[in-house]
Amino acid sequence: MARMKVTVAYDGTDFAGYQIQPMGRTVQGTIQSVLQKMHKGEAVNISASGRTDAGVHATGQVFHFDTDLIIPADAWSKALNAMLPDDIYIKDVEEVSESFHSRFSARSKEYHYKLLIRKEPDVFQRNHMFHYPYPLNISHIKKACGYFLGTHDFTSFSSARSEVADKVRTIFALEVLEEEEFLTFKIRGSGFLYNMVRIIAGTLLEVGQGKRKPEEILTIIAGQDRALAGKTAPAHGLYLHQVNYQDKPE
Amino acid sequence: MARMKVTVAYDGTDFAGYQIQPMGRTVQGTIQSVLQKMHKGEAVNISASGRTDAGVHATGQVFHFDTDLIIPADAWSKALNAMLPDDIYIKDVEEVSESFHSRFSARSKEYHYKLLIRKEPDVFQRNHMFHYPYPLNISHIKKACGYFLGTHDFTSFSSARSEVADKVRTIFALEVLEEEEFLTFKIRGSGFLYNMVRIIAGTLLEVGQGKRKPEEILTIIAGQDRALAGKTAPAHGLYLHQVNYQDKPE
Repeated sequence: MARMKVTVAYDGTDFAGYQIQPMGRTVQGTIQSVLQKMHKGEAVNISASGRTDAGVHATGQVFHFDTDLIIPADAWSKALNAMLPDDIYIKDVEEVSESFHSRFSARSKEYHYKLLIRKEPDVFQRNHMFHYPYPLNISHIKKACGYFLGTHDFTSFSSARSEVADKVRTIFALEVLEEEEFLTFKIRGSGFLYNMVRIIAGTLLEVGQGKRKPEEILTIIAGQDRALAGKTAPAHGLYLHQVNYQDKPE
Repeated sequence: MARMKVTVAYDGTDFAGYQIQPMGRTVQGTIQSVLQKMHKGEAVNISASGRTDAGVHATGQVFHFDTDLIIPADAWSKALNAMLPDDIYIKDVEEVSESFHSRFSARSKEYHYKLLIRKEPDVFQRNHMFHYPYPLNISHIKKACGYFLGTHDFTSFSSARSEVADKVRTIFALEVLEEEEFLTFKIRGSGFLYNMVRIIAGTLLEVGQGKRKPEEILTIIAGQDRALAGKTAPAHGLYLHQVNYQDKPE
């Protein structure tokens, strides 16, 4: 029995999310059905670092699975990619120790939120960036970012549907990258609550638009109330960029 | 009665091509049904510079239509974009004289053919670039481009299904743009036969791979036989970039 760690990219557009469900095409379901074929009909469960919602993308999602097949790591990638549809791409497969767990061994995760900030939409990017045609004060956004850093109770920045009891998380880094007509929020943290990155992105946009002051982030966090924060930015701008299993990101 | 000239971008992925047909979602059909709503149920025919196949994109397709509605050009764009799906975007609307015809007034057209030339595919670009993971000799491709320039009978570079009698066309420019892992063929000509850009792209790739010598383009053109040229490159790399109504491109 070997445990395999897999790094995967997917375009979330045509999936009803990562997690398998009775109805709808999912990333997990699609990968598991390919693994089942490779294992001669035997069901194989894959265990990911976390779910992503419908429409959310990944450039570096990680999952693991256990197998009796003896296949070199390289050959795993080729075999899987040959059988998977072209909106899922296996970037890397490596054998890991039995103690590795894609979710519990993760030290931090990095998400990117991508925006197209020009007036005109781009038909080719419509599923891969949030089109935001309003003027933004980028320096105010950058100032607001600083208030998220560190360890806080992020109740205000998590969906009311979140069922996790402990809402304390640590944000290690939150950067704003401006390139021509593109804006990207890069956020790395110990973990993220349900919708947390999308609510942070939506709140940062309200700061950029002048609807809120950068300092307001402090009072929003302190209030521990979802109603205090901004709107949840749409799913199609969000990317699970990387899952880190070392204290320092690779 | 006013004649309106419209410049439109569309993502060809989810269309069965530009031209309206009984079955399948088309660009023309989608736009005409929006115009019909604006004209209180009266059918409005739009006339484009030419068709594009299923999967082919446009950043600058042009069509015209006649209307009795009195609406400023700016308001036309807004109204149409508000009603159109987000894979079609109206870039510009202007009133033109009755003598203007999107097809017959065109002096030249420019197409781009986009390639991703790294080893790994990109799930996010899978419908918008042709992934070509094989090594390419770019200087050979550039040399081959020169042989296409000028006025030739392009029978060898047109689909056998082409029903046009006169296959003489003029290529004004054919450039190769290399940017990191992207390669773009930019071609401007008096007009193009069915599949012509895609067959030229496919043949240039065979030159780049060393399967053909650059000089071979001369004998392929001279032979006036589709079987002599390379494979037709896939639709999803092709963009109708611009239609020019002046002798010099705008």
